Amino acid sequence: MSEKQTIEQLKKIGVSIVTSFENNKVPQLDIPIRSTSNIVYSNKYMCYILGDKKLQRSAGNIRHVKKMAQLLKVGDFCKDLVSHGKRHVTKRELYYISESWGPKLKFDEQVESDDIVEDIEAMLEKPREDLKIIPNPKGSIYGDIVLRFKNPKGETMTVDCLKTADGQQIGPRTCDAEFVKTSADKILAIETGGMYNRLIEENAHEKFNALLVNLGGQASRSTRMVIKRLNEELNLPVYIFNDGDPYGLHIATVIISGSANSAHVNKSLATPNAQWIGVTATDIIEYNLKTDKLNEMDIRRIKELQKDPRYKDDKRLQQELATWLKLGKKAEQQALLKFGFEFVVNKYLPAKFKELKAPGFSK
Amino acid sequence: MSEKQTIEQLKKIGVSIVTSFENNKVPQLDIPIRSTSNIVYSNKYMCYILGDKKLQRSAGNIRHVKKMAQLLKVGDFCKDLVSHGKRHVTKRELYYISESWGPKLKFDEQVESDDIVEDIEAMLEKPREDLKIIPNPKGSIYGDIVLRFKNPKGETMTVDCLKTADGQQIGPRTCDAEFVKTSADKILAIETGGMYNRLIEENAHEKFNALLVNLGGQASRSTRMVIKRLNEELNLPVYIFNDGDPYGLHIATVIISGSANSAHVNKSLATPNAQWIGVTATDIIEYNLKTDKLNEMDIRRIKELQKDPRYKDDKRLQQELATWLKLGKKAEQQALLKFGFEFVVNKYLPAKFKELKAPGFSK
Repeated sequence: MSEKQTIEQLKKIGVSIVTSFENNKVPQLDIPIRSTSNIVYSNKYMCYILGDKKLQRSAGNIRHVKKMAQLLKVGDFCKDLVSHGKRHVTKRELYYISESWGPKLKFDEQVESDDIVEDIEAMLEKPREDLKIIPNPKGSIYGDIVLRFKNPKGETMTVDCLKTADGQQIGPRTCDAEFVKTSADKILAIETGGMYNRLIEENAHEKFNALLVNLGGQASRSTRMVIKRLNEELNLPVYIFNDGDPYGLHIATVIISGSANSAHVNKSLATPNAQWIGVTATDIIEYNLKTDKLNEMDIRRIKELQKDPRYKDDKRLQQELATWLKLGKKAEQQALLKFGFEFVVNKYLPAKFKELKAPGFSK
Repeated sequence: MSEKQTIEQLKKIGVSIVTSFENNKVPQLDIPIRSTSNIVYSNKYMCYILGDKKLQRSAGNIRHVKKMAQLLKVGDFCKDLVSHGKRHVTKRELYYISESWGPKLKFDEQVESDDIVEDIEAMLEKPREDLKIIPNPKGSIYGDIVLRFKNPKGETMTVDCLKTADGQQIGPRTCDAEFVKTSADKILAIETGGMYNRLIEENAHEKFNALLVNLGGQASRSTRMVIKRLNEELNLPVYIFNDGDPYGLHIATVIISGSANSAHVNKSLATPNAQWIGVTATDIIEYNLKTDKLNEMDIRRIKELQKDPRYKDDKRLQQELATWLKLGKKAEQQALLKFGFEFVVNKYLPAKFKELKAPGFSK
């Protein structure tokens, strides 16, 4: 759908260079600045985005020439990838592929090629996944949803995620798949593979009419994109269920509002209306869960979140952060198992869904 | 199939205790010793296994009573799990579940419950997966194989892994699935998700008649069990394709011959006839791959492998280890991308399959 548009955007960069040459002008590129000086919080998008500042890379500046040529080469490479349509590369692969571009264009370190990929993301205002540059497959999805996708031979296929044994691995074809049909009315994103399996085995997908997403720890960009697409295209509310510690909360906030260092693409990755279920600090007290002490890193994270402009008006979150500091302890989501296998689906999650007014559970 | 046998084995432990009480004898348990003093290399199984030494835990020894009671409780819990048939727990979950067993039986640290699970594994000579204690889902499988499994509601279902978008996540139901049919004549196990995706997109599964397994780094026990089952039940040779460094080689050796600290279950996890493809040290030279320097840890690993009794007669491996040390460098599997997308499937792997006499490629 947007592939044509991406190709046009990439072509436009090349055309601007050619036109400059034809008009005897020194070619230059305007690239949005991605440093903190140009990162602003957007109330509209409810995440950090880039401001308007740009840097100019000019073919007239000897220090700019190599990077400019490399950017054009990467852009050209991505145009071919998008046109081809059936291939994706990782950032690591791109770095090695550049070995064949000759000594003037090849990258000496991956940080250089990564940097240029981010420049192009910022110029196009599109995530690199639209350029077919993808992360390693990670995470999975289970529940009643039929995906339509093209296999690498270009054949159109469908897969019913409810009929897989342990869920569909989330890779590039899942990420790009068309959502054909689902009976689900919500998404439940789960931090650990263990709890994801628990919820499959306790039939949570059926009881809550939910799609279960295994984040596998910090969610990969592909997983975040799948969550965002399900939220926007199917209008499904998203609930994030993680460990009761600041790192778990961090995992949730990255899904909700992206991260500062991906400000140039947060609009395409963040799901601002996703809601954090817990385990909250209050849960730890209320259910008297088995705990560990907060370490220094945990405490630093809490203090950062207390000052974060994105969450300063979130009363529930702020209250939880204060409770956490006071409590000085954290708990894992598996700690709920002390009440038996079914407690999570029969008591804990229903109470949360009611509180957060989830479909089928609000008053 | 073997579930009944597992239940009988667990019952037998309980019955022996009850019988002792009935005969006015002090109950005791014989538990295979898992420390290095009792780990021996088995030429028959081509991996480390436990020797015959046992320790006796006696109800007459005050220091043994708690651990003995905990072992019986865990055994009883596992018997219920196996009988139930539709549930699996992680080691972490088991630890938290014990919170509900009261102050005398609950575990204070996970290392205690893990230890008892390993005692039971050693007593039964069965991996904990047979007791329904599983690792977090990790890894995936793609290619022409139909799996028959029971969903958590007990309904029998089938999934064709070739018709999933990015592969079937490997979790407990995949691990236990029946292999209904496949046209594949080999397994290709791949270290990185990136290369796994590359091979899907270059149609490696079709070109080589192979099932592709994404290890996702160090393979989880579930993934190793799936590989072993495919090897033994379907008679499919296994080829392991990893990064050209000692850590990659370590990943391969764990699949081939297990690890020393799982000596008590290696027989159930190792695939001794699996073959290591590379990237080898020779590949690095032959293809002039982009490299990094070996670090101290790498060099230590190489020296350990040179002395390892499991590999001392493996001429090819020993030659590669010597070449590595001389070269002082390592390379990632993605480094092959410098020759383009298709090089791996058109040149590299065919040459390897021919050398290793893979089906369809040997003379």
